[in-house]
Amino acid sequence: MDVKKMFDEKLSRRGLIKGAGMVAVGAAGMASLKSGGLDFLSNAEAKGGATEKWPWPYEKLDPEKTAELAYNEWYRLFCGGAVISSVFSQLREKVGEPYKSFPIDAYVFLEGGIAGWGTICGSNAGANIVSNMIIGPRIAGPECENGAVIGANVMKWYSETSLPVYTPEDPRVKTELVRTTSDSPLCHVSVGKWMKASGYPIGSPERRDRCARVTASVAYKLVNDLNAWKDGKFKETAAWGPVKDFGITSQQNCMDCHGSNIPSAPQAKK
Amino acid sequence: MDVKKMFDEKLSRRGLIKGAGMVAVGAAGMASLKSGGLDFLSNAEAKGGATEKWPWPYEKLDPEKTAELAYNEWYRLFCGGAVISSVFSQLREKVGEPYKSFPIDAYVFLEGGIAGWGTICGSNAGANIVSNMIIGPRIAGPECENGAVIGANVMKWYSETSLPVYTPEDPRVKTELVRTTSDSPLCHVSVGKWMKASGYPIGSPERRDRCARVTASVAYKLVNDLNAWKDGKFKETAAWGPVKDFGITSQQNCMDCHGSNIPSAPQAKK
Repeated sequence: MDVKKMFDEKLSRRGLIKGAGMVAVGAAGMASLKSGGLDFLSNAEAKGGATEKWPWPYEKLDPEKTAELAYNEWYRLFCGGAVISSVFSQLREKVGEPYKSFPIDAYVFLEGGIAGWGTICGSNAGANIVSNMIIGPRIAGPECENGAVIGANVMKWYSETSLPVYTPEDPRVKTELVRTTSDSPLCHVSVGKWMKASGYPIGSPERRDRCARVTASVAYKLVNDLNAWKDGKFKETAAWGPVKDFGITSQQNCMDCHGSNIPSAPQAKK
Repeated sequence: MDVKKMFDEKLSRRGLIKGAGMVAVGAAGMASLKSGGLDFLSNAEAKGGATEKWPWPYEKLDPEKTAELAYNEWYRLFCGGAVISSVFSQLREKVGEPYKSFPIDAYVFLEGGIAGWGTICGSNAGANIVSNMIIGPRIAGPECENGAVIGANVMKWYSETSLPVYTPEDPRVKTELVRTTSDSPLCHVSVGKWMKASGYPIGSPERRDRCARVTASVAYKLVNDLNAWKDGKFKETAAWGPVKDFGITSQQNCMDCHGSNIPSAPQAKK
């Protein structure tokens, strides 16, 4: 059987695509995701395990309490795990399953941009995991589109905001910390720009506390958006569509890496 | 209470750190992770939900069967979701829980380097999720260290290998596809280099099938490593330690982005 036809038929049965070919005429939701750069992808119906029914039950959380939890959990689970824990630990108590069965602690590996490789900042990865777990993936139907939208827009907010914006009630490092705008969702770029502006090395308590506060800032923003979604007030669409505009996946600021202002790489220590 | 002291005591109770201060003298496992670039991070004892006991039960899988599943699942879940599905769908049948409760389909958002942003290739993110879910996070104890090591080393293998290495039994695109070495774990760099070498745009069936085959290649490599771990034969340590050598998180090839050979960014379409 022709694969394209097969997928069209599957989609049609779910009411996501009507008419011939791969032309989506579905809800505004799908349209907004497609404008988010994913219009080169097709999709099909979900198979579904026990926890694959979306959205998961959600109760509104206090953003400040969530940020405090994230800040403190950074010192146990680091950026990605801390964002997930700050939201899911509260929902384990308020809601129970499926949050109790979600293996929060396994996500320590998001640290340092995935095991220290400096790719996506773990707090961004963690925010995407949380929003897509709660609201669901785009293939689960138009009612789930905001999972991807909230996650993607956290990355945009992260890239454009002078971070950290959240100062914990009782920070471990008492001195004021410099804020920097990363212009990127990547750990390596975000941490590197902050280290340059602050003068603190990666192993310093200040750099560590800066990352804990960035994590808290992301958790605050994330819960704000999730609460708005719960209230039916989240109306954003994906704010960045690289594939449509630039013909390739990418972050929102091409010239930051493709310009003439790239810093020299540090030399290996002898 | 002094935070550093508190964490030292917690760690000491778990036998991960002995003696004063943050000096780790634990298993070779911890040492290898630290050489992997994570030595600027501290850790503490896990809290533990229902699925947070590691390692999860694992039965050896056939790498070729897994690669075929990943290839086909790419056309439903894309890179990250397909790697996870290719392994966990088999373990749902062979083992049952906790794999049945793992929300595989939610990971569609790993597509296009996280919602199209071109950061970490979803197949790398998916491989890290799988290895860290099955074997566990490093904070769960030395017996879990290989979760992070296998995930990190898949990124290194991905960066250094001319991909895709795996050709499916019955590929959707019948023509031979160019192979390229990304020198990076990032979607944007990997896809961009392949597009340049092949001449195919992002929306083409060839680019899509290339990414499906890359996903299959990663799933093959991942299951090979997991099987070796199951047999007690996985002896690798984390192969890349940027923090120790370069003082910042980063990928394994500084000059690929910090050299003089950066391609021009594409212009926005009018």
